[in-house]
Amino acid sequence: MTDNPIVKGKLVCVALNDADQFEAMQAEFNEAPYKSAPTQPVLYFKPHNTWSTEGAEVEWAADADSMVVGASLAVVFGKECCRVSQEEALEYVGGYTLVHDFSLPEKSYYRPDIKGKCLDGSAPIGAAVLTASDVADPQALSVVTKVNGEVVNEMPVARTVRGVAELISTISYIMTLQPGDVIAVAFPGNRAPVNKGDKVTSEIAGVVSLNNQLGQ
Amino acid sequence: MTDNPIVKGKLVCVALNDADQFEAMQAEFNEAPYKSAPTQPVLYFKPHNTWSTEGAEVEWAADADSMVVGASLAVVFGKECCRVSQEEALEYVGGYTLVHDFSLPEKSYYRPDIKGKCLDGSAPIGAAVLTASDVADPQALSVVTKVNGEVVNEMPVARTVRGVAELISTISYIMTLQPGDVIAVAFPGNRAPVNKGDKVTSEIAGVVSLNNQLGQ
Repeated sequence: MTDNPIVKGKLVCVALNDADQFEAMQAEFNEAPYKSAPTQPVLYFKPHNTWSTEGAEVEWAADADSMVVGASLAVVFGKECCRVSQEEALEYVGGYTLVHDFSLPEKSYYRPDIKGKCLDGSAPIGAAVLTASDVADPQALSVVTKVNGEVVNEMPVARTVRGVAELISTISYIMTLQPGDVIAVAFPGNRAPVNKGDKVTSEIAGVVSLNNQLGQ
Repeated sequence: MTDNPIVKGKLVCVALNDADQFEAMQAEFNEAPYKSAPTQPVLYFKPHNTWSTEGAEVEWAADADSMVVGASLAVVFGKECCRVSQEEALEYVGGYTLVHDFSLPEKSYYRPDIKGKCLDGSAPIGAAVLTASDVADPQALSVVTKVNGEVVNEMPVARTVRGVAELISTISYIMTLQPGDVIAVAFPGNRAPVNKGDKVTSEIAGVVSLNNQLGQ
């Protein structure tokens, strides 16, 4: 298992935040038992055993036929953040980096898929961090992901249901965020399929990159 | 926020493991979208900001009308535990203690209720630990919970859908458990309602106790 120097307390991921995906799922949202779209951010955790780093090999899940990956802008907290407004939210950010979320394919959006999401070493987090003061507007960032050199996803942070400041504010009312906590805010709706040995690379505008290879 | 000396990496909780509750929910399980009972353990995390200790005051959730508490036997890992059999599972346990899970009342068992479950300081963990070598059979333990001195729940570990060794084995195939990780294995199905200022005390057979009071 690989330690990670960035995330210290918790890694919170936001699901269903790609506005295109959210729009496309309206019919599914309207089925039983909810019969409406989620009104609050849908969150999941990547626990301690999942944390990994730039350059690390990602173990192929035991007995898995297939795996997928999504990349997201990762917000790294620099200060304790509890019940803050949207207007002041960005003041608590220490910096921005990338996270790769490797998982089993998701069969349903209902049940928390702990088995598929909590694979050892399945959450590499970028070693390089864009200092918050160098980022005028995180909504203007975009994350591009390549598998074996081919672009499989491009996710502008602007294409989200909830933006970075809104998410920080909302989540800070649910739980206190501490220095070294990370929120992955903007996964693309379509996770990219990966195979054994594939090389996965994501970049924020050419300045921060995260590189991982699947094991055999 | 109160640190806890026992849990270091992750606190995994097992839901729906009270056999009486599981039996009583069959009709609900058979409704859409699943139309069957869960075939795997249903897990949730109590993240870093929730960890608290013996004697700590538990903050009343902001704007909450009501809160509930469940107590569980807590398995503390002493050794790294990955893909172990049920037969060898207990060898990885360092000791046993108690956890209180304070939360908002649950409206549905479907959606991971991050908001209700991840309140700051809502997971006090006992300071006293029963050393594993002193426990011949964790299935023989029982947890009694009192609110203001009145017994509100009694949960024999034997009354679970899945026992301690089976859970450790199954979860160890999902994610590696590390020294200082904790699994709360046996919450009673009926969480007890609590009010501001209530004193909550749980005990394992008179040898380990956990005492917390709700804030105002």
